[in-house]
Order: sequence, then C-alpha cells, then structure tokens
Amino acid sequence: MDYILPLQQLIEQFGQLKGVGKKTAQRYAFNILDMTDEEAILFAQTILKAKKDIHPCDICGNLTDKDICDICSDDGRDKETICVVSETTDVMSIEQTREFNGVYHVLNGVISPSKGISPDKLRIKELIDRIEKENIKELIIATNTGIDGETTALYLAKMVNKYNIKVTRPASGIPVGADLEYADRVTLAHAFNGRTEIK
Amino acid sequence: MDYILPLQQLIEQFGQLKGVGKKTAQRYAFNILDMTDEEAILFAQTILKAKKDIHPCDICGNLTDKDICDICSDDGRDKETICVVSETTDVMSIEQTREFNGVYHVLNGVISPSKGISPDKLRIKELIDRIEKENIKELIIATNTGIDGETTALYLAKMVNKYNIKVTRPASGIPVGADLEYADRVTLAHAFNGRTEIK
Repeated sequence: MDYILPLQQLIEQFGQLKGVGKKTAQRYAFNILDMTDEEAILFAQTILKAKKDIHPCDICGNLTDKDICDICSDDGRDKETICVVSETTDVMSIEQTREFNGVYHVLNGVISPSKGISPDKLRIKELIDRIEKENIKELIIATNTGIDGETTALYLAKMVNKYNIKVTRPASGIPVGADLEYADRVTLAHAFNGRTEIK
Repeated sequence: MDYILPLQQLIEQFGQLKGVGKKTAQRYAFNILDMTDEEAILFAQTILKAKKDIHPCDICGNLTDKDICDICSDDGRDKETICVVSETTDVMSIEQTREFNGVYHVLNGVISPSKGISPDKLRIKELIDRIEKENIKELIIATNTGIDGETTALYLAKMVNKYNIKVTRPASGIPVGADLEYADRVTLAHAFNGRTEIK
C-alpha cells in the first residue's frame, strides 16, 4: 500500500529538509497528524511568518526582522571593526562567545571555483562600499579554515590592501580541551606557528 | 545575542517534533529560510492540507482521506480476517510485507496500567461492534511483543472468547538473517516453543 496522497505529500515536504531521510520524514509527518488542529495551524503559520518577516540586514546581511539588524543598530558596538563571515549562522556562533564587540559582514558563501561560486556572487561589493563610506580600522576574516575559506580570506585581503586597514584571521590551533596527540598535522603546524607568549 | 523572534519561534516549532534537539531544529529553521517563498508556502500549506484531509477510517481507524479507507473498501480483501494493531504506522509496516490480505483494526494504543491507558481508552468497543455485526473468522492480534502488547492481546482474546473466533498472534522468534547467538533468552525461548516442522 502506498501512503494516501496528503500524507505522502507531507512526508515529501519534510524529506526536503537537509539530513532528513525517508523514515525520519515519516516520523515527522505522523507527529504533525498527532497534533491538535490548533498546534498544526500554529506550526504552518510560524513557517509563513518567519519566511515573511525575516530578511537580510540592509547593512551587514545578517538575518533580521527589521531594516537594520540589532547588531548594526546597537550604539554600544565598535563600528570600526568588521568581522567577515560566510553565513548568518556564523554570526550566531560568534555572538554566543560574547568575545566580539564589533559588527559583521555576511558574504553569503565563500569563493569556490569547484562549485562555480565566483567573487561577484558574494556580498563583496557591499563590503567594499562599507569600507569606502565608513571608517573601518580592522577586518577580521572569519571564513572557515578549509581551502575555499582561505582562498576567500586571501582574496579579500588583496581587495582591501589599498585602504590601509588591518586584516586579521582568527587563530587556528588545537581546540581547547583537546588532546595534542589527536590534532591533525596541519592544525598542529598552525598552532606552533601562531604560538603566543605566556606573560 | 538571542535569535530574532520569528526565527526563535520557528526553531521552537521544529523542536516539538519527536527526536529533534536544539541544533537540529535550528538547521531545519534555516532550511526553511533558504527556501524560496513559493517552497515555504507549499510546505505550510501541505501541513494544513494533511491535517485537514487525513482522519481515521470509520470502520478500522486507519488513516484515510476518504470516509472508508482503501483497505476496507477493497472488495479483493478478506473481510473475515481482522489484524488488530496498536498504531496506524503498523498497518503501513504490515502492508509493505504484502503477506496479509485481510483487513485491519487500529486500537490507537495498548493497555498500559503504568501509563494510565485503560481498555476504555482504546478502540476496543468498535472492534466488538465489528465482530457482532460482521462475519469474522480470525483475529490476528499484532500488538508489540512487550508486556503492554502481550497484556492487550490476552485481554482481547478473553473479550472475544464467547464469539467462537480463532485468535492468533504473529510468530515471535529469531529475526531472519540474525545470528542465533545474539538472540536474547526470551526470544530464543519463543523461537523454540513455536518451532515449525520442515516438510
């Protein structure tokens, strides 16, 4: 027996979500059917509301439900330091450390010749605009440490070379709490090259 | 930084689904934001449509989008043999074997004193009604093999005792392809008690 059509369609919708296989999609679909009408309506409405209200910040590209996101409109933040990230989720991760008080710029990806992502597909022009209009002192390029992330970082560093801005990368090294013997060779090399003095 | 409200609400909605933790709910929420407007609207509408159209079959309690489900309304099926299951998902599992050509009766649970589920909370009255009105020859009680499933099976067997109906349980034993040494003691005991002759 095949599933009845509306159930089959619901399973297919959940199956679209990343990392959701057939069995999991079925379980989610049955979860929906187990809900009260009110709960299911709220679920559907929340999807529509989120999709309608959430959009990129006009300045940094971070997700917001206003024109300018809470970080860009916060007077307590250091507007002279921009942390460049590839995705909005990276903003969330960095904010959770409570270590960074500057502002962000979301690229919406990284340069990747293998995936056909060229610099013009990213929000690089918007970054240069900000650098030309605002008084930026430091650019922390926090793209991932893989090849694409490094390529993007080098590309950006070259692009902003003429503006006399300090360009940095977050330190890469041994994760806190991790055993040295389990660190891979490249990470260990980075850790030694970037060693800091104990004062 | 906390998530902006509509995103937080979307994460909470996904977090309600069984087996979905915070990280997974976040990932699903971002999946929704990555969709086009049309895709997100379709997702929400499919939830509403499934919830509106799908309901229990008037006869067997299986999920259907009609009054009577496709199995109960199929003239090719043996209406004299009812397979009693606890959940509608069990119907799907059994149908996939293509071994059973009778009809079903979904109890919507099993008797469980520890969870406060008494017989009157299940669709047992509806089963007795069917037995009294229809010409039932065999009842296959396919509730799970755990304590609650066994209790329910024994309870039902006692209930229908007076109607002169054959009451059976599916065989329990060693799963096909499994090693005998890994079967637990109870399963192995069942397998030996229910041994069949090679002809």
